[in-house]
Amino acid sequence: MKQYLSIDDIPDVDALVKKALTFKKDPLSANKLGIGKSLLLLFSNPSLRTRLSTEMAGKNLGMRVTTMDLSSGWKLEYEDGITMNTDKAEHIQEAARVVSQYADIIGFRSFPSLVDREKDYQDFQIQRLANLASKPIINMESAIRHPLQALADLVTIMEHSKSKNPKVVLSWAPHPKPLPQAVANSFINMMRRNEMDLVITHPKGMDLAPAMVKDTPVEYDQFKAFKGADFVYTKSWSSYSNYGQTAFLPDWMVDKEKMKKTNQAKFMHCLPVRRNVVVADDVIDSADSVVISQANNRTYAAQAILSEILSNA
Amino acid sequence: MKQYLSIDDIPDVDALVKKALTFKKDPLSANKLGIGKSLLLLFSNPSLRTRLSTEMAGKNLGMRVTTMDLSSGWKLEYEDGITMNTDKAEHIQEAARVVSQYADIIGFRSFPSLVDREKDYQDFQIQRLANLASKPIINMESAIRHPLQALADLVTIMEHSKSKNPKVVLSWAPHPKPLPQAVANSFINMMRRNEMDLVITHPKGMDLAPAMVKDTPVEYDQFKAFKGADFVYTKSWSSYSNYGQTAFLPDWMVDKEKMKKTNQAKFMHCLPVRRNVVVADDVIDSADSVVISQANNRTYAAQAILSEILSNA
Amino acid sequence: MKQYLSIDDIPDVDALVKKALTFKKDPLSANKLGIGKSLLLLFSNPSLRTRLSTEMAGKNLGMRVTTMDLSSGWKLEYEDGITMNTDKAEHIQEAARVVSQYADIIGFRSFPSLVDREKDYQDFQIQRLANLASKPIINMESAIRHPLQALADLVTIMEHSKSKNPKVVLSWAPHPKPLPQAVANSFINMMRRNEMDLVITHPKGMDLAPAMVKDTPVEYDQFKAFKGADFVYTKSWSSYSNYGQTAFLPDWMVDKEKMKKTNQAKFMHCLPVRRNVVVADDVIDSADSVVISQANNRTYAAQAILSEILSNA
Repeated sequence: MKQYLSIDDIPDVDALVKKALTFKKDPLSANKLGIGKSLLLLFSNPSLRTRLSTEMAGKNLGMRVTTMDLSSGWKLEYEDGITMNTDKAEHIQEAARVVSQYADIIGFRSFPSLVDREKDYQDFQIQRLANLASKPIINMESAIRHPLQALADLVTIMEHSKSKNPKVVLSWAPHPKPLPQAVANSFINMMRRNEMDLVITHPKGMDLAPAMVKDTPVEYDQFKAFKGADFVYTKSWSSYSNYGQTAFLPDWMVDKEKMKKTNQAKFMHCLPVRRNVVVADDVIDSADSVVISQANNRTYAAQAILSEILSNA
Repeated sequence: MKQYLSIDDIPDVDALVKKALTFKKDPLSANKLGIGKSLLLLFSNPSLRTRLSTEMAGKNLGMRVTTMDLSSGWKLEYEDGITMNTDKAEHIQEAARVVSQYADIIGFRSFPSLVDREKDYQDFQIQRLANLASKPIINMESAIRHPLQALADLVTIMEHSKSKNPKVVLSWAPHPKPLPQAVANSFINMMRRNEMDLVITHPKGMDLAPAMVKDTPVEYDQFKAFKGADFVYTKSWSSYSNYGQTAFLPDWMVDKEKMKKTNQAKFMHCLPVRRNVVVADDVIDSADSVVISQANNRTYAAQAILSEILSNA
Repeated sequence: MKQYLSIDDIPDVDALVKKALTFKKDPLSANKLGIGKSLLLLFSNPSLRTRLSTEMAGKNLGMRVTTMDLSSGWKLEYEDGITMNTDKAEHIQEAARVVSQYADIIGFRSFPSLVDREKDYQDFQIQRLANLASKPIINMESAIRHPLQALADLVTIMEHSKSKNPKVVLSWAPHPKPLPQAVANSFINMMRRNEMDLVITHPKGMDLAPAMVKDTPVEYDQFKAFKGADFVYTKSWSSYSNYGQTAFLPDWMVDKEKMKKTNQAKFMHCLPVRRNVVVADDVIDSADSVVISQANNRTYAAQAILSEILSNA
């Protein structure tokens, strides 16, 4: 692998999952691979899991890790040809090339505008960075993708699934704020690539991008969607068609009654999660909730990606 | 030791002081003990000494150290059964369990509300974290305790004391803002445990919790309290009875005249200190001021605690 | 070297440049020199290049590196004899002595007030720190100096110059905000020390400190100044005589027409740079722009300084 901007950068998903599970058993098994190599993590938005798990992944491989909060400094300009007399003090043209000289691998997080759909769906910021940088870029959640999360999600499903192609439901959740579509997009992409029996359920109007959904079945009746599910992944996102808008529909919370429709499904969420808004306490606290283990797998997913890129370099 | 939430977690104070002094002589004497182990420091409030000394302590033991400022991300919810539609984006139930997977030892700092005395005196936040976490928690100053400071304080007294049970005065100080009682509480606890001849002096109304003070003598006349003291520890705190309130009483500043009443006492403060409000320049700048050395001992106190926990694991 | 507050702390500039170029060829060639030693970087102002390059420099030498953003905690008081009942919670007297105990070398960044010229030109904050600290201080840009930048600038000129004493033009640039004079001051100091053929060009009124400029020729006609130049270094600064004020004069931007007057000069800037305000796209994007390589040299300049100080300790 030369970079990890999206699921499509993975040449062999099965091999990668195996690698992640190997690291889970023995996190320090490749602790010389990254010796003398630097990992730089740049965050334009706050992060807990992504930051800590990716840092740990790098250190498990022997890398030196530096984390930088871009939001505490100046803002970056991403558009070319601009007269830079605004609040943006540095252009991505310089920033990308400069930081490439200070690290061997660069992780980058930046959220969507949720206003300019076209720009967001070009994955504009991370694509500019990747095109300008001379070092491999790792997507730590971009405008429309969260492929490290999706790899951890797949690892989690592999660990808990009794069949090769379980029924997986991606269920929209209510949330006080309009949220990015990145987690949902990359999850769909990963499930489709692995030929899972995926169903998406959301209220009418809270649709995702057709280019992401493709021919995945969409069921507007959440109860129907849950029937026979082996995995329920819930996540809030804002609308694609009515771009960046959300609706607060408390009835869409995942509760015990809905879970009873499933095939004793495992409950998944990428976290952070708002209890009793997105999911009821008695579901997330149940024995079938795998959210903590899912967060743990973030480390080994990131470690598998980093080790692939290090091996390729 | 399995954790370090309070002085009461120390099985043998003498042995711990000896260990700290050993590390002071040779900081890298156990630099293999923590190899491959991670220390995660989480700060809900700003820190200079605690952060740098605890980081150095971990690194002296060979640990990998990650520091995270929680205040720059989202807020945590500590109450159960809440519908999380407020400004708090993650529950301590998830956060505690998740970060336990990303580190071997977790340091945590969080200040009191100074409004809800009952919650503060349950040491609610750090106790919730400790109960939910699957890894040892170290208190880097909680609502009502600062046991790393108290251990460094004891080490400092041991280094400078001519007798086994010196007279120690804990003296309230004026301050423009109402401050936590944590430093005073843990200092009292530590002095009592070591059977020091402790006297507390403060203006009427600026009392500490009876459960902390117990039968320690309280003298409202600061001059009387200072008589014959071997150590004067000054610190501002807000009132327990009139919870979270303070009074600005400049006369309570420690000055040269007051220090003359003592047995050439060593002057102590945990820092940061407001000069000419809490203590006069000519006292903190005198040869009997040990505040800089006291701050230095923070490293070796933390290193002693970390090495105890690592040895136990 | 015992410290690096200004160019004047360098005993032998040629040897230092050679050292930097050696590290550029083989960054890990002295990776045992700093083992067990700590580098502490304290920032009162945001930084991208300085932070990442100095961190990398320390790590290349085997040092442990800790970076701390002072602006996210409390403010420091630098004046003596003050009654500290303001918003400043700690005095430099304590802070300097305390942090000296937590590190072997300390980097410090703090910008000028641009209001109190006398204080700024005493380089008051970093000088106080250096006088009080018991460990070597490295200037990561102070009120009036940026000697790490100037060393990287010299290395860059040495790499690209065809002659021993090229013609170098320091050209004032327009900018929406009044900026420090630090970069210009240290650049002039470094060029003069190396007997470069330096010319300064700026609009009348945007003058620099006479004590810095000395007898360096100042040419108010930018076109004339550029004639035959081998290097054009552009940078915005605010006025010394009309202290801290700036004027927005778009005509002073470096563009292709002006560059044509030069001897195919290399274009330099310390970054971050505002495109099409300070410099036109077609100049910074041209083959003669060396700004990215200049930023790369920051690492090796810092590494040369750190290695000198480590070798001296």
